[in-house]
Amino acid sequence: MPEPDQPIQRMQTWKLTLAYDGTDYRGWQVQPGQCTVQGELQSALGRITGKTPLPQGSGRTDAGVHALAQVASFVLSAPIPAENLQRALNRTLPPSIRILEAKTMAGSFHARHSAAAKTYEYRVRLQKSENADICSPFLARYVYAYSSLLDLRLLEEAALCFIGEHDFLSFAATDPDLTTRSARLEGETALSEEDETPSTVRTIFSSGWEERSSEFGDLLVYRVRGNGFLHHMVRNLVGTMLDVGRGHLAVEDIARILAARSRAEAGPTAPARGLFLHSVEYDEP
Amino acid sequence: MPEPDQPIQRMQTWKLTLAYDGTDYRGWQVQPGQCTVQGELQSALGRITGKTPLPQGSGRTDAGVHALAQVASFVLSAPIPAENLQRALNRTLPPSIRILEAKTMAGSFHARHSAAAKTYEYRVRLQKSENADICSPFLARYVYAYSSLLDLRLLEEAALCFIGEHDFLSFAATDPDLTTRSARLEGETALSEEDETPSTVRTIFSSGWEERSSEFGDLLVYRVRGNGFLHHMVRNLVGTMLDVGRGHLAVEDIARILAARSRAEAGPTAPARGLFLHSVEYDEP
Repeated sequence: MPEPDQPIQRMQTWKLTLAYDGTDYRGWQVQPGQCTVQGELQSALGRITGKTPLPQGSGRTDAGVHALAQVASFVLSAPIPAENLQRALNRTLPPSIRILEAKTMAGSFHARHSAAAKTYEYRVRLQKSENADICSPFLARYVYAYSSLLDLRLLEEAALCFIGEHDFLSFAATDPDLTTRSARLEGETALSEEDETPSTVRTIFSSGWEERSSEFGDLLVYRVRGNGFLHHMVRNLVGTMLDVGRGHLAVEDIARILAARSRAEAGPTAPARGLFLHSVEYDEP
Repeated sequence: MPEPDQPIQRMQTWKLTLAYDGTDYRGWQVQPGQCTVQGELQSALGRITGKTPLPQGSGRTDAGVHALAQVASFVLSAPIPAENLQRALNRTLPPSIRILEAKTMAGSFHARHSAAAKTYEYRVRLQKSENADICSPFLARYVYAYSSLLDLRLLEEAALCFIGEHDFLSFAATDPDLTTRSARLEGETALSEEDETPSTVRTIFSSGWEERSSEFGDLLVYRVRGNGFLHHMVRNLVGTMLDVGRGHLAVEDIARILAARSRAEAGPTAPARGLFLHSVEYDEP
């Protein structure tokens, strides 16, 4: 019989909530020879605990995408108080990554599989006249400096079209060098990793635009909350809505694009720098 | 007799107003093999006009220091409308440098020699409790995440001590590897470049702190307006005031430090990343 305090008993599942400025990272996912958020986090854990579990994110964010509150989980056998781990991580990580919270969870917790909902924000610089085309250097890393005038009422109407359960295949990335699964599924929640026929159906709970003022210019901010998102989905929704807002597409075209189940029907992919993973929700036990 | 439209007649003095995020630059001043704001601007002028005048700034900003409205001047013989030059520069410069205005001036205009007053801002993250030591990644490039609690009333009292004409030698940089002149004089306005006995006397017109809220945390912002500043002067004023604000120095010590005319008496140099050149004023003809 094993003793009750064998190492296996001391393995703990950790949940980290973290913010990052994604500008200088090649995205979340660890890649050989590249600076990534997951890689920085794994190295930091190694420096502190001597162990290098690979933290699993609630979803992969692409190069240049930011996070206000990404969630990552990992299993670790080092007995360390949560606030000490948080403080030590913040001391060794670069200032562009901050651990907002660290806590231990039930062993079944997994940042991606356990997620019930995610919210993203996309920030567009609000241009008030045709010639005001100067985007402040202090906004440039965090917004899409869109060069056309936009009709906020049309953007709002377009955003409402996405609410509910839809097949979002038209808004999924089609990167030819990635497999269907890794290209199209980001932050998968409804399916287990073993699932062989990944669905492109997602449920959007809320979707809308708001004006927000900032020191360096006014913004139009899109916020969308759903049970999961396909790869590039938010950026493709935004690119398509901007086509509506500038008058290149009609609001009625959205239903047609959804029904087409073809990436070619939707608008362009909005740049990564405007996108923020806002928050991830879990059904707390 | 020369023709009235000889090239010499078409030389024009330009005034550029520009903003920059200084984080990724080795300061304003051009340096071999280094990425600097002045160097980027000179290269951009070369790509557009085929000529590479060296733009003279109102003062040199150090590595990591930002500008909301730096002013630069240069002489150019290319006949180009002001708004075209501005647009072309913004198209070729990196997004971290933006030309806010371009205009031609009387031939005697010089960004540094003609300046009548300059205003700097210094941003400190306002910490509300001892343990709230997490600075958002979206603020980290632009503030000093000071780790001690500060008494705003003491900061205000300290700031008032600098108003008026004082010898600021105690607050001037003492870099041993720079000559007295280049180390200590920044944004020289009262003296011509030929002056052999540079003065360390400056007049401060206003000096004060304010609280400012931002999306990513509350700030304490120091704003100082004067007829000129010595090298590192604002950062040394701030470092000393922070010593007062945390209770390590008394407000009464400021007068003693000014009188000592010794850098060793003042507080530490606050980090570059909190400093913004806010604006430069000229007596318009």
